[in-house]
Amino acid sequence: MPYPFPRDALPTPALVIDLAALERNIAAMAAFAAARGIKLRPHAKTHKSAEIALRQIAGGAVGICCAKLGEAEALVDAGAADIHLTSPVVRPDAIARLAALNRRIALSVVVDHPDTVVALDAGVDAPLTVLIDVDPGMLRTGVASAEAAVALARAITASARLKLGGVQFYCGSLQHVPALAERRAALAERAEYLRSVLAALAEAGFAVSHVTGGGTGSFAIDAELGVLTELQVGSYVFMDREYRDCEAAGPGFETALFVDATVVSVNAPGRVTIDAGLKAFAADAGVPVVLAGAEGRYVFTGDEHGAVIGAVPPGLGARVVLMPPHCDPTVNLYDRYHLVAGDEVIGAWPVTARGCST
Amino acid sequence: MPYPFPRDALPTPALVIDLAALERNIAAMAAFAAARGIKLRPHAKTHKSAEIALRQIAGGAVGICCAKLGEAEALVDAGAADIHLTSPVVRPDAIARLAALNRRIALSVVVDHPDTVVALDAGVDAPLTVLIDVDPGMLRTGVASAEAAVALARAITASARLKLGGVQFYCGSLQHVPALAERRAALAERAEYLRSVLAALAEAGFAVSHVTGGGTGSFAIDAELGVLTELQVGSYVFMDREYRDCEAAGPGFETALFVDATVVSVNAPGRVTIDAGLKAFAADAGVPVVLAGAEGRYVFTGDEHGAVIGAVPPGLGARVVLMPPHCDPTVNLYDRYHLVAGDEVIGAWPVTARGCST
Repeated sequence: MPYPFPRDALPTPALVIDLAALERNIAAMAAFAAARGIKLRPHAKTHKSAEIALRQIAGGAVGICCAKLGEAEALVDAGAADIHLTSPVVRPDAIARLAALNRRIALSVVVDHPDTVVALDAGVDAPLTVLIDVDPGMLRTGVASAEAAVALARAITASARLKLGGVQFYCGSLQHVPALAERRAALAERAEYLRSVLAALAEAGFAVSHVTGGGTGSFAIDAELGVLTELQVGSYVFMDREYRDCEAAGPGFETALFVDATVVSVNAPGRVTIDAGLKAFAADAGVPVVLAGAEGRYVFTGDEHGAVIGAVPPGLGARVVLMPPHCDPTVNLYDRYHLVAGDEVIGAWPVTARGCST
Repeated sequence: MPYPFPRDALPTPALVIDLAALERNIAAMAAFAAARGIKLRPHAKTHKSAEIALRQIAGGAVGICCAKLGEAEALVDAGAADIHLTSPVVRPDAIARLAALNRRIALSVVVDHPDTVVALDAGVDAPLTVLIDVDPGMLRTGVASAEAAVALARAITASARLKLGGVQFYCGSLQHVPALAERRAALAERAEYLRSVLAALAEAGFAVSHVTGGGTGSFAIDAELGVLTELQVGSYVFMDREYRDCEAAGPGFETALFVDATVVSVNAPGRVTIDAGLKAFAADAGVPVVLAGAEGRYVFTGDEHGAVIGAVPPGLGARVVLMPPHCDPTVNLYDRYHLVAGDEVIGAWPVTARGCST
């Protein structure tokens, strides 16, 4: 179908971006970072889209973050040229791919174990920038203490090809603390810990000038606290129900990501069935919000279906617009974004790195 | 890499099929259906794979079920020739695609509303077989009463191009009742209701000889109860943690689907982080089971990671094998299956209809 065409004509379930809202979100974060003098390196694990990554870079970002090597490879193939990998790469086959990527673009990767330093040093054939991943207490990745950070810095600087590029500190579990004051207090406490790690590194002769981290729930507080020098924000481009439910710090962002669905069954009183279920929304963070086309609450009713339960259900074939509960894993279900302006579909973008999780 | 190669060399997270176990599962269900004289039409929404569908048909299945039109289109392009669509198709653009598919293969589709009968009749240009979807009380799709079924049968037979092909009755919410006796009692009660609907149809002049339904939790009980003439079982090919947690009726099936992951961080006592999170497992049905490479329980720790918590955690780079909690939406996250025989990878199949949810 030639563009533009009516949004109602999209086959459903459809992953939809309000392009103007996306662009305003990209611009608002870029303006915030520029005003605070903090670097911006948005996380591409949210959108997995070369089109969005290139717009973020055009808007002032220094590059992008990727969570997985496969994600980075797909985005490099599509034009990304400056990537920080936020997860450790440890398998021999993965290190070989990392070495190949390191020959193509400006690349950095986190490390959190001396064995990985040895393996990376043996596996790459050109200088590689590595950042020490410092665990803020999530117990996911990262070194567990200042002592471990210093030991890792020593191992990195003693290696032949690795260059210590800085520190990563991502307070993932604090991003969604709903109350702003509580989130700020927890982040401030963690920033003190980070300062102590940086002080221990400096005392051992490793003065670190690059500290990357932060997310959509913390970026404004991170900028206030002044320890991070680079923001890894991801979800701000789209927002989702999880972040909407949190008290905003700094500039607010608009919902720019939607799933359009269709009412396919109307036989039960007070509810209708739509064609969007567990294969249309990631289910880890509760339920989507019904935004338009119906009034009511969504419940999952299976792999392919959900119900909208409400007083005035829409009729058979009606279009319902929903806000995903959690954007990153929902995006990963779709091959393409449909772009809308008002009620018109004006284009489509591939989800470039969909499913690239290795 | 040329096949065979060691399973340990697979990039992770990887979706893995034990091919011999899959083939035994396919054969066991085919033998069961043949012995009971009941038709077998496995549901392809589980595997979305042309290779598996064609093996099921070669094993004696009369055709396959699809949940969505896009899924059916992808599988027809890959060779499937006899498909029953188990969800109503209501949108004008979808009906146009249904009409096109109806010209290519043996096709049937459920209806649950008189308006859809009218729309389908106007939208197709060749005879189309439709089945009356009867709601067993799930409130998802299907007519809500015997009276509504009779009214729909009248509308279908009064139409120009639609042919009444039978009834669909899928007790989805009873498939996972853990205790067999309780599941059997609930299914027996629902079978009585189905008999009453079929009797009302017969009394109104619509003798129905084709009744399709059932699932991996109910098929043996359905065969005993003797109302269904065709089984729509899906998950039996793979099994998953949800079905493993249910007391089996009839022949048991083996776990044939796995996710292989790698330990990428080992800095927290008593736990390790693996590279498989919300983008590697659907999270609607609890957590995966750790089967090999580690002893412990899995917890989701983010989009890209999970933790294995246990007394003896494996080392950095170790391979961990997990059983998905819910196979259908997990499969839908991956582009390909890796086939293993013992510790060797012997091939790969595409997930033919991955993401085809429209």
